[in-house]
Amino acid sequence: MQPEPPHTRLRRLRRKQVEDRSALDALLDEVLVAHVGLVVDGHPLVLPTAFARDGDQLFLHGSTGSGWMRAAAAGAPACLTVTALDGLVVARSTFESSMRYRSAVVFGVLRRLDASARNLALDVITDKLLPGRREEVRASTAQEQRRTLVLAMVIEHWSLKVSDGWPDDVEEDRAGPAWAGVIPLRTAAGSPVGAPDLEEGVPVPSSVHAFVEARA
Amino acid sequence: MQPEPPHTRLRRLRRKQVEDRSALDALLDEVLVAHVGLVVDGHPLVLPTAFARDGDQLFLHGSTGSGWMRAAAAGAPACLTVTALDGLVVARSTFESSMRYRSAVVFGVLRRLDASARNLALDVITDKLLPGRREEVRASTAQEQRRTLVLAMVIEHWSLKVSDGWPDDVEEDRAGPAWAGVIPLRTAAGSPVGAPDLEEGVPVPSSVHAFVEARA
Repeated sequence: MQPEPPHTRLRRLRRKQVEDRSALDALLDEVLVAHVGLVVDGHPLVLPTAFARDGDQLFLHGSTGSGWMRAAAAGAPACLTVTALDGLVVARSTFESSMRYRSAVVFGVLRRLDASARNLALDVITDKLLPGRREEVRASTAQEQRRTLVLAMVIEHWSLKVSDGWPDDVEEDRAGPAWAGVIPLRTAAGSPVGAPDLEEGVPVPSSVHAFVEARA
Repeated sequence: MQPEPPHTRLRRLRRKQVEDRSALDALLDEVLVAHVGLVVDGHPLVLPTAFARDGDQLFLHGSTGSGWMRAAAAGAPACLTVTALDGLVVARSTFESSMRYRSAVVFGVLRRLDASARNLALDVITDKLLPGRREEVRASTAQEQRRTLVLAMVIEHWSLKVSDGWPDDVEEDRAGPAWAGVIPLRTAAGSPVGAPDLEEGVPVPSSVHAFVEARA
C-alpha cells in the first residue's frame, strides 16, 4: 500500500509558494546535490546525493553495492529536497532576520532503471554535473555501466518555496540606528587543481574552464 | 514505541567514515542549513532549516505557526543531515568522477524547549548565523521569543562521511591524454546590499564585514 504523499501546499507563508514549473526546473538544473529522504524501519533517513533532471524525471545514481539505493529501488516512497541558499537577510532585529533561499520538495517513489534507460540517464547526470565532459573522455564501458545503479522519480507532487525579499522591520526599528540589508551567498568555484598523478603540460579542458567561469 | 535509528556505520566506502567527534562538530558549526527528515503519515518529508549546535545539542527554530515543527515537537524521530560540497572530482573517465564533500547524519528525536532553554538556544542560533550581530541590535522582546518555537535534538547517534581525495583512474586512463583534477567549491558571500528602506550613511556593521570576509 503506497502512502499518500504529504500535502504539497504550504500552510504558512503562502506568499512564498511558487507554482511556476519552469522555476522548479531551473532550481533542479542549477543545484548539484539533493537531499533524499526515505523511511527505514519506521525512522527517517536523509542522504545527500548528486542528481539530474530530464523532463519530468529525476535521476540519482550510485554503486550497485549501495545498500540504501538497492533497498529503495523497488518503489520506496521518497522525498527529494533541493535547496539553494541565496543569502542572509540581516534585519534590524534578530527576530526579523532570516534567509533568502529557494527550496524544492518533490514527493514520489524511486524505481530502478533498466539497462538502456540507465545508460541514457547516466549521460544526463554527467552532462548536468560537468557539461561537455563526455566529449573529452572515453565512453563508459559496459562493465562500468553495469556497476552503476540509477534510480528515477517522476516529478508529479512538488512544492517550491522562494524567499527573496528584504528585511521587514517594524517602524520603531526602521527609525533606529541599526543597519539592514542582505548578504548574498552562492556556490563558488575556485581554480581547478591538477591531480597529483597528472603529467605536466596537460591543459585544463574546456568543460572545466566553462564550469569555473560560470561560478567564478 | 520509539523506532531504532538506522545503523550509523557505513556498509560501503568505510574508508570515508570519520569517527572524530571534533570533525563532526566543525562541520555542524560551519554549515548554516540542515536538511531535516521526518516521517509524516508513513511518508518521508525533508525540509531545509537553519540550525546551530551547543555542545551535544542541535537547535532548530521556527514560527509557533509552523505545522511541521509543532507536529515534530513531541518527540518525533528525526534525521538531521548536514552537507558541505567541497568540490568536483574530475577523473579521466566519467565513471571515476565524483565529488568532494563532508556529510553528517544525526539521528534522534526532536523535543520542544521550554521558555528559558528556548531563549538561550535562540542566542546560540543567532551567534552562529551572524556572530556579533546580537551586540549591534536591540534585544528580542518577550513577545518575539514567545512567537518562536525551538526544537532540540541530542547528538548521540551520528555518522560522518568525508570524501576529500583525488581521481583514482585506472592505469590505462592515466596513460591517456585526458586531464584530471579537482574543481574546489565553497559557499561564498558577496558584497552586502543595504535594504531599500535603509537611511543613507548607515555603515555596514562589523558583524556583516566579518561574515563576508570569512567567506570572500
